[in-house]
Amino acid sequence: MLYVVGIGPGGLDMMTFEARRAIEESDVIVGYKTYTHLMKAIIGDKTVIKTGMCKEIERCTTALELAQEGKNVAIISSGDAGIYGMAGLILEMVTQQKWDVEVKVIPGMTASIAAGSVLGAPLMHDFCHISLSDLLTPWEVIEKRVKAAAEADFVVCFYNPRSRGRKGHLKRAFELMAPFTDPKTPVGIVKEAGRRKQEKWITTLAEMDFELVDMRTLVIVGNRSTYIENGLMVTPRGYQL
Amino acid sequence: MLYVVGIGPGGLDMMTFEARRAIEESDVIVGYKTYTHLMKAIIGDKTVIKTGMCKEIERCTTALELAQEGKNVAIISSGDAGIYGMAGLILEMVTQQKWDVEVKVIPGMTASIAAGSVLGAPLMHDFCHISLSDLLTPWEVIEKRVKAAAEADFVVCFYNPRSRGRKGHLKRAFELMAPFTDPKTPVGIVKEAGRRKQEKWITTLAEMDFELVDMRTLVIVGNRSTYIENGLMVTPRGYQL
Ligand SMILES: C[S@@+](CC[C@H](N)C(=O)[O-])C[C@H]1O[C@@H](n2cnc3c(N)ncnc32)[C@H](O)[C@@H]1O
Ligand SMILES: C[S@@+](CC[C@H](N)C(=O)[O-])C[C@H]1O[C@@H](n2cnc3c(N)ncnc32)[C@H](O)[C@@H]1O
Repeated sequence: MLYVVGIGPGGLDMMTFEARRAIEESDVIVGYKTYTHLMKAIIGDKTVIKTGMCKEIERCTTALELAQEGKNVAIISSGDAGIYGMAGLILEMVTQQKWDVEVKVIPGMTASIAAGSVLGAPLMHDFCHISLSDLLTPWEVIEKRVKAAAEADFVVCFYNPRSRGRKGHLKRAFELMAPFTDPKTPVGIVKEAGRRKQEKWITTLAEMDFELVDMRTLVIVGNRSTYIENGLMVTPRGYQL
Repeated sequence: MLYVVGIGPGGLDMMTFEARRAIEESDVIVGYKTYTHLMKAIIGDKTVIKTGMCKEIERCTTALELAQEGKNVAIISSGDAGIYGMAGLILEMVTQQKWDVEVKVIPGMTASIAAGSVLGAPLMHDFCHISLSDLLTPWEVIEKRVKAAAEADFVVCFYNPRSRGRKGHLKRAFELMAPFTDPKTPVGIVKEAGRRKQEKWITTLAEMDFELVDMRTLVIVGNRSTYIENGLMVTPRGYQL
């Protein structure tokens, strides 16, 4: 059995009971080392196969081979495994190559939700997830989505706001949004949501400090109704108080 | 203390450890009865204040009053409380009215993620959440977002696909998407994700049966790359296998 497990964005507190059980029932844990480290209290002395970043296909092949040999394997992603995580690649390999492996995807809480709860309630109205990584997606596609989201007044959650080596993506995205957005639109920034080193900032499009943003950061841009009050970022749903 | 708790879409398995602890540490639980019922094993003999649908302001006022009297209160939402849930309204009331209450939002896994894991991996690329309820949002705003999402090739998760009394919303949304989408675009439908009565269907825009959809259903429309294979709905991220 191969469990594809979303462990949630943080430590043990933000994972689900079924995700914990899947890890406990596995013989081998496969994952990027930051994530196996977050789970070390429940992994105990199980076999751990750590792999570096950018080795996704290798990591998935290893997990499938071990599961095909009869082991119970958990391949872990942070957040939800089905959101820019390992579930897609595993299911692509299973549907397109010959593997005799039973796969179960165990969902997890994604980073935007944890970041939202830290900021207040910015995701109370329609929102999008956009990854600013152009390693696997043409940059023109990303630009088109950023503009469409701003024009239609979605709240936007930016994943991978700063790619390896590429610093300017988020700044460029904000420029694309500018024709449709007020410079005072609230922006929430959460680094390492749910983890020991969590940090957050609430600012505006005009006052954004891009240097705060790194690869472990989630950035949420509000819609036309989002406001900041008492240090909270809130997008009203539309109730009349 | 007032905990605003997202209990996840299903039963105890899909909730986080911190959400469970918040409920266990509370004296009073406030929530719509379907959700207090899902949690009954951990609520035990605590005081439960159940309220019906459409009583959101009343429900939040009760929770704030009890917390202000010094009780530990948990107001619970399904999925994440910050996604079309109770967190927004509580924080709007706290930022705009005079309440002397400490509030903590405990994030939860939202329905789209659970539904995604049941269908395969449809959310592997940029996606939006759109609520089709026009009780609090003008229908023109919803239409604009639906068209923008289809045109920019987002995967779309429809919440509230069928409002009380209004049957035609999802059909109308699909008509708005039609100029930008292939009729063969995969559609995943999950009713009561993560619960005992969970059901799922995978179909296409052209073959959609709108009668399957009710208020406890999440509908996911794929992007231009999403495919169906072995009964799974998969949106590729872009890896070369
Ligand atoms: C490859 S994606 C993985 C997303 C993950 N599967 C999820 O559902 O959260 C990596 C990006 O997710 C975001 N991210 C993941 N975990 C985070 C956390 N704990 N705090 C802030 N952002 C996080 C960052 O934007 C990061 O660049
Ligand atoms: C008012 S919204 C609440 C959303 C919730 N706060 C969340 O984050 O999932 C209600 C809508 O969420 C969706 N929903 C909530 N729980 C669900 C479940 N277990 N299965 C399928 N859809 C669900 C349905 O579309 C429903 O009409």
